[in-house]
Amino acid sequence: MNTYDLIMKKRNGGILDKDEITYIVDGFTKGEIPDYQMAAFLMAVYFRGMNDEETTNLTMAMADSGDRLDLSLINGRKVDKHSTGGVGDKTSLIVGPILASLGVPVAKMSGRGLGHTGGTIDKLEGIPGFLTSISEEAFIKQVNDVGLAIVGQTANLAPADKKIYALRDVTATVDNISLIAASIMSKKLAAGADAIVLDVKTGTGAFMKTLEDSKKLADAMCRIGNMAGRETVAVITDMNEPLGNCVGNTLEVIEAVECLKGNGEARLMEVCRELAANMLVVSGKADSKDKAYPMIDDTINSGKAFDKMKEFVAAQGGDVSYLDNTDLFEKTKYEKIITGKDIIKANDIDVNEAYLNECDNQEIGMASLLLGGGRRTKDEIIDLSVGIRLFKHLGDRIEKDEAVAILYANDENKMSEAFNRFIKAYKVTKDKAAGNPVIYKSV
Amino acid sequence: MNTYDLIMKKRNGGILDKDEITYIVDGFTKGEIPDYQMAAFLMAVYFRGMNDEETTNLTMAMADSGDRLDLSLINGRKVDKHSTGGVGDKTSLIVGPILASLGVPVAKMSGRGLGHTGGTIDKLEGIPGFLTSISEEAFIKQVNDVGLAIVGQTANLAPADKKIYALRDVTATVDNISLIAASIMSKKLAAGADAIVLDVKTGTGAFMKTLEDSKKLADAMCRIGNMAGRETVAVITDMNEPLGNCVGNTLEVIEAVECLKGNGEARLMEVCRELAANMLVVSGKADSKDKAYPMIDDTINSGKAFDKMKEFVAAQGGDVSYLDNTDLFEKTKYEKIITGKDIIKANDIDVNEAYLNECDNQEIGMASLLLGGGRRTKDEIIDLSVGIRLFKHLGDRIEKDEAVAILYANDENKMSEAFNRFIKAYKVTKDKAAGNPVIYKSV
Repeated sequence: MNTYDLIMKKRNGGILDKDEITYIVDGFTKGEIPDYQMAAFLMAVYFRGMNDEETTNLTMAMADSGDRLDLSLINGRKVDKHSTGGVGDKTSLIVGPILASLGVPVAKMSGRGLGHTGGTIDKLEGIPGFLTSISEEAFIKQVNDVGLAIVGQTANLAPADKKIYALRDVTATVDNISLIAASIMSKKLAAGADAIVLDVKTGTGAFMKTLEDSKKLADAMCRIGNMAGRETVAVITDMNEPLGNCVGNTLEVIEAVECLKGNGEARLMEVCRELAANMLVVSGKADSKDKAYPMIDDTINSGKAFDKMKEFVAAQGGDVSYLDNTDLFEKTKYEKIITGKDIIKANDIDVNEAYLNECDNQEIGMASLLLGGGRRTKDEIIDLSVGIRLFKHLGDRIEKDEAVAILYANDENKMSEAFNRFIKAYKVTKDKAAGNPVIYKSV
Repeated sequence: MNTYDLIMKKRNGGILDKDEITYIVDGFTKGEIPDYQMAAFLMAVYFRGMNDEETTNLTMAMADSGDRLDLSLINGRKVDKHSTGGVGDKTSLIVGPILASLGVPVAKMSGRGLGHTGGTIDKLEGIPGFLTSISEEAFIKQVNDVGLAIVGQTANLAPADKKIYALRDVTATVDNISLIAASIMSKKLAAGADAIVLDVKTGTGAFMKTLEDSKKLADAMCRIGNMAGRETVAVITDMNEPLGNCVGNTLEVIEAVECLKGNGEARLMEVCRELAANMLVVSGKADSKDKAYPMIDDTINSGKAFDKMKEFVAAQGGDVSYLDNTDLFEKTKYEKIITGKDIIKANDIDVNEAYLNECDNQEIGMASLLLGGGRRTKDEIIDLSVGIRLFKHLGDRIEKDEAVAILYANDENKMSEAFNRFIKAYKVTKDKAAGNPVIYKSV
């Protein structure tokens, strides 16, 4: 077997078998196959695609490229959750405590990731004292004792994915369903949970812009998970506007607290309930989603879910007084209110009021990034306190003098850059347009 | 401008403009664009193709990546000739002296190349004393004095091509018409001739296996040459069997001498006449090919062409007594006759005579390579004396006891490897099949 022949085979539309795919993944991970051959191979895959079996074999080879987490010492059926990522997506912070308060063990290892805000790990680090790096033993003990632990990735999970993704990122070979599915699922399989609930985002702020592509990705990932013996389900949710009212790091922790106290924004809560219901079903704690919803509502309304969040934060060294009183979180130096007038002016129409009709959600994310809330390269330092608070959602009417959003920044230049980006992200019209549902489909 | 965006643009089927293509070629040649990005770009080009303008811009950028030879000190209209390569192709050794003897200056810089035999330069080095490395001044003086010089490539011609080709060679991105055309024409444009005659081979022993692809490549190269202000014509010739009776290095020099003495094999001479006639026309020495053919025949029959070959070889230090008496060339240690019986047996049919019907010419080339006559990597040393002499061509009847070919080797193991390869290269049948013309088309 040699790499040249395998590139040629895929280039010519051939189907690679398990041994051939393993040869490429292992060879590249070990540095025996050079970057340039892998780059050509990935571009050939981009054009020719991979069938279900190839995609599964690719995922398995990547999952086997490093350690596989052994969660067998955790009692009960472990459920993992993964989101394909979007603007204002803080569902892990909300769903984790809900599930744990209902007796489902949640053992989550999160990467930091790149994007408009940090990952779950970065957000939690906004709570003074919170430790994201603990030993594997302590991690497992905490899940058994508290029911929930969220830590940074310590184990060498799917190093093939790390290396392949870095190459795809600079060779325009990211957006291929098989490669995306294998990248996500190889890490999930290596992370050791018994069942997986996927939140596949769709829309202008998501990786997948169309419902059709999101559906394909969800199907591919569920097929891989189930073939690998992990019960896997997916929910396709809307990302045509930010999820909830906050985009940022500590801002999103504060919003998660509000949600667990029963004051969550409607669409955000709908997504959290749907994900949690699916997780309760695949964990075996609920027979059906219909039976799961009241369990979720009860655990929030009774305060148990919020108590579980505090218990989990305390277990990882975080100062829970910040959760009881979120005013303690550090404030930014500057705040700027964006009014209806700013948005209407940017849309170049002459009205006193209008409806928020469309949102280029990617641009909202970019505004958050520009404020300092996210990172473009893994070495950038995130400003955890900055971000955006939204008062309006798609379909809402805005008046000239109303506040549409507040930007929080510690740097005036960044503020004005983000402002200019933000005001162009919304399209407003005189008439109200039909909005989008927040849950499209469960797969 | 950045490389990622250009890969993405081509991947998505976009058309790159001159600046964008120059950015990629220059960046890669200077080492600013890494191999892996170029590999992804080349694979995207493989799938998306390049239009005429892109192909021309690519060629120009590559031609401009190094030195351009200045042939202005050579009197007259300089004509270059290029063959896409095939088994037994020694036309430069025959056409060069013919043209020079008719007053057309031929200034040829040849690479060594890889393949079943060496390049023209390797073949000429089989003549004791022959110098392939002379200064640019001496080269130009010799063309003015003798009318012909053939030297190894000294100038830094089209280094972008060298670097891009090396990458294509290991990433399965060789066989794309635009990339092939740009590779060939960038070197021809940099080599400075006023007019170019291309010999595009087609068939089992050629790079282009089908007439359709050969036609496309010929069209692309003529378009590029003419757009660059060099009159360019192409002849498409057959490569479904070796050209002429000899495959090897000194063996091909010996055959060239026979041709210039008027004893050339028919199909080989037909190709040489067609190429020479085209060169006489584009040089302005003949008004039409019909007027050119008798000029060619005269210069051979009068002995002028052979005299010119000796004059040229002498000018470059070669011992012309080897041309007057080709028996002086060193003989190999071993010779093996391949009989009709060997071929018939390999075809697993039970007859006493049969017709040579089809030839896997690539395999004949491979037999020559295995004998030691060619090189797979640029560091391999060629055994100039080994090779193959053929007694039969497609359509010929062979009897069991007849000699079909002789293999010449200096190593018994190589001999038996080459023998096994050779006998399987021919398909024979009881009935005679229609043969192929040797000249398909002039473009």
